[in-house]
Amino acid sequence: MMIELEIKVPCADMTALESRLRGLGAKHVEELEQEDVYFGSPLRDFGQTDEALRLRRENDHCRITYKGPKLDKDTKMREEIELDIEDLSRMSAILARLGFSPVLRVAKHRTVYSYGNLEVCLDRVDGLDGYIELEYVGEDLEAGRAEIMRSKLALGLEGNERRSYLELLLEKGR
Amino acid sequence: MMIELEIKVPCADMTALESRLRGLGAKHVEELEQEDVYFGSPLRDFGQTDEALRLRRENDHCRITYKGPKLDKDTKMREEIELDIEDLSRMSAILARLGFSPVLRVAKHRTVYSYGNLEVCLDRVDGLDGYIELEYVGEDLEAGRAEIMRSKLALGLEGNERRSYLELLLEKGR
Repeated sequence: MMIELEIKVPCADMTALESRLRGLGAKHVEELEQEDVYFGSPLRDFGQTDEALRLRRENDHCRITYKGPKLDKDTKMREEIELDIEDLSRMSAILARLGFSPVLRVAKHRTVYSYGNLEVCLDRVDGLDGYIELEYVGEDLEAGRAEIMRSKLALGLEGNERRSYLELLLEKGR
Repeated sequence: MMIELEIKVPCADMTALESRLRGLGAKHVEELEQEDVYFGSPLRDFGQTDEALRLRRENDHCRITYKGPKLDKDTKMREEIELDIEDLSRMSAILARLGFSPVLRVAKHRTVYSYGNLEVCLDRVDGLDGYIELEYVGEDLEAGRAEIMRSKLALGLEGNERRSYLELLLEKGR
């Protein structure tokens, strides 16, 4: 069974971290421009109903996602319906005509490195400080956990941010 | 300036018409499976507001279209926002979760011929009789009009249906 492990930690100096990664032999994978736009419904408060309607652009690739409420309290399972769309701004315009308004935009520049068995993402999020995500995808839970902890130490990273960028931006806006 | 001219006429015997087209030297272009699904809004009656929200599938190619009300009484100009989408059924499911319901489905098999400077479409519409569309796209209004009339006669077609398939199906349903 494949396992995904991920931690996110704040990072004040992204340039220094990038040098350190290169020094440790990490390989640069790609640069991504990501933009998420979350919409509110004219019928109900998606915050209350625990739903979300999102348009996402990753470089030139766009998609629309609907997330339903969590199916029960114990798991994080929820209905998710997603498909590719040709264009973010035209889909956004159609949603506006139908009565849905953009409530929040999360835009970030993501620099992706491959480091050992991990993927390391350097996220520069508009309106927030820098964050680093360390992700392990593999079959060995303990080995993955150990590698994430070892790499975090080697990179001089501290802390653990459990909130999503959306949550951080919403809290900052309050 | 490019001009588009189009007429639609009923046709009782599509097989005979197709033989006649081939006999006159028309060239078979393509077969299309087309499906249009129109949605109603939970906020207002799109029939009253003169708006439309449509998903269209043409073979494997899908798109979503919003049509706004006519901008004035004299012209047929209206806002139209359209984009390609990956999949009709998933977009339909998202719209359903957002409160929009499918109100009408227009499905047809379209056989396309090229005949002189015209495109001739043989439409087999679910729930309706057969219809033929003759279309001219070019720069010469008078030549186009004459060619459509000449071809209509040569093909033994009579009549002129101005209503859309959507209107014909809605009227039949009443």
